[in-house]
Amino acid sequence: MNQLIPNVYFLCAGSSDGKSALTSFDGALLAAGIGNVNLIRATSIVPPNCHETDLFAIPKGSLVPIAYATITSSHPGEIISSAVAIAIPEDDSLAGVIMEHSDIASLSITEIKVKQMAEEAMEIRNIKNFVVKSKGVETIVNNIATTFAGTVLFWKQ
Amino acid sequence: MNQLIPNVYFLCAGSSDGKSALTSFDGALLAAGIGNVNLIRATSIVPPNCHETDLFAIPKGSLVPIAYATITSSHPGEIISSAVAIAIPEDDSLAGVIMEHSDIASLSITEIKVKQMAEEAMEIRNIKNFVVKSKGVETIVNNIATTFAGTVLFWKQ
Amino acid sequence: MNQLIPNVYFLCAGSSDGKSALTSFDGALLAAGIGNVNLIRATSIVPPNCHETDLFAIPKGSLVPIAYATITSSHPGEIISSAVAIAIPEDDSLAGVIMEHSDIASLSITEIKVKQMAEEAMEIRNIKNFVVKSKGVETIVNNIATTFAGTVLFWKQ
Repeated sequence: MNQLIPNVYFLCAGSSDGKSALTSFDGALLAAGIGNVNLIRATSIVPPNCHETDLFAIPKGSLVPIAYATITSSHPGEIISSAVAIAIPEDDSLAGVIMEHSDIASLSITEIKVKQMAEEAMEIRNIKNFVVKSKGVETIVNNIATTFAGTVLFWKQ
Repeated sequence: MNQLIPNVYFLCAGSSDGKSALTSFDGALLAAGIGNVNLIRATSIVPPNCHETDLFAIPKGSLVPIAYATITSSHPGEIISSAVAIAIPEDDSLAGVIMEHSDIASLSITEIKVKQMAEEAMEIRNIKNFVVKSKGVETIVNNIATTFAGTVLFWKQ
Repeated sequence: MNQLIPNVYFLCAGSSDGKSALTSFDGALLAAGIGNVNLIRATSIVPPNCHETDLFAIPKGSLVPIAYATITSSHPGEIISSAVAIAIPEDDSLAGVIMEHSDIASLSITEIKVKQMAEEAMEIRNIKNFVVKSKGVETIVNNIATTFAGTVLFWKQ
């Protein structure tokens, strides 16, 4: 294993209320299945030959590179959403790109936007053949709420 | 040593004036005892079996995972503070949680808040038996000032 | 190689338009020569005995520690700029410091500021003999534009 280049990835998303901004963020991570690890924010590349995997139980407390978007709102009734999209070139010698976005908007709107961003990232790189995939979540704010969506990069033997 | 899972942690805090926001932040890190390393911001888990240690001289320039809060103010006379709290379950197979908070407020207020956040993180996880510990710092702004509090995660043999 | 302490560094900068904030950021990274790696933001130390290197082709998707500044504007006609400065002590047992700054201003102004910040970081550490070096970029906003400047830390055998 090359410790500087992750070899698996998965998309995840979750939302939660909380008594404070940070605890609602913590709850959203738990809902996304990654609440007991140490997220290290990264910009936003899927390495060549990095393979998709199902969400799995990463050992607690691990340092986990992730590209993510999150939004927290304390305005009851507001709709908030977060989404990630990845564009993976068919040529597996090329890197894929992760785009992430959060907004005070429904998930359908945020997901369209984030997919367009992933397509634009391919266009900038002159890559014609690629697959786009996305995942996201929306919620209606009760008191204080957070949505979260991310692409986890990790290592598996 | 598992390079993805730190095995020691310590709490630290410091404050400093400076001529700019970033140099007052730099001074606050020096005051906290971690001014000559590369902080990598992480969310916010104490791994199982990660042990508390005294602040020690981490080799200069090391990449250091840390959960932290910081605030910078350029309003003379303002009181600012930063605090971190950790909640460590008695069952050492469970992960602990780090919460961090900064505010334009005295440390006593910020520290109460950050402890409550750590307790809420245990509540969300249905963990009943745990210990809470906190550390923080406050300052009165002269010109431009920063307060900083963090929980360093690192490795020791 | 000590995986917690990078042994080479280089300065880089780039700017780009884009259809969104994040895709203009992506374009700026490509322009800077580091668009296909995973940047991990770090505060802001050049380790002792870490040597400058030319920008080189880091393997795609690598996790890359970097101290950087970036600014995105959607105000056509606005001048934006980003710069990094490093101060390297003559005594190579001491750590160097990286400072970064972005502003709605020309590069000449931003670069003076960031150099002063690097000098202040030496002053705080009571280091008298050091070399300062900087790099940056400016652009005039068309639609949505980003400038980016950073100091990459990495490993070379």
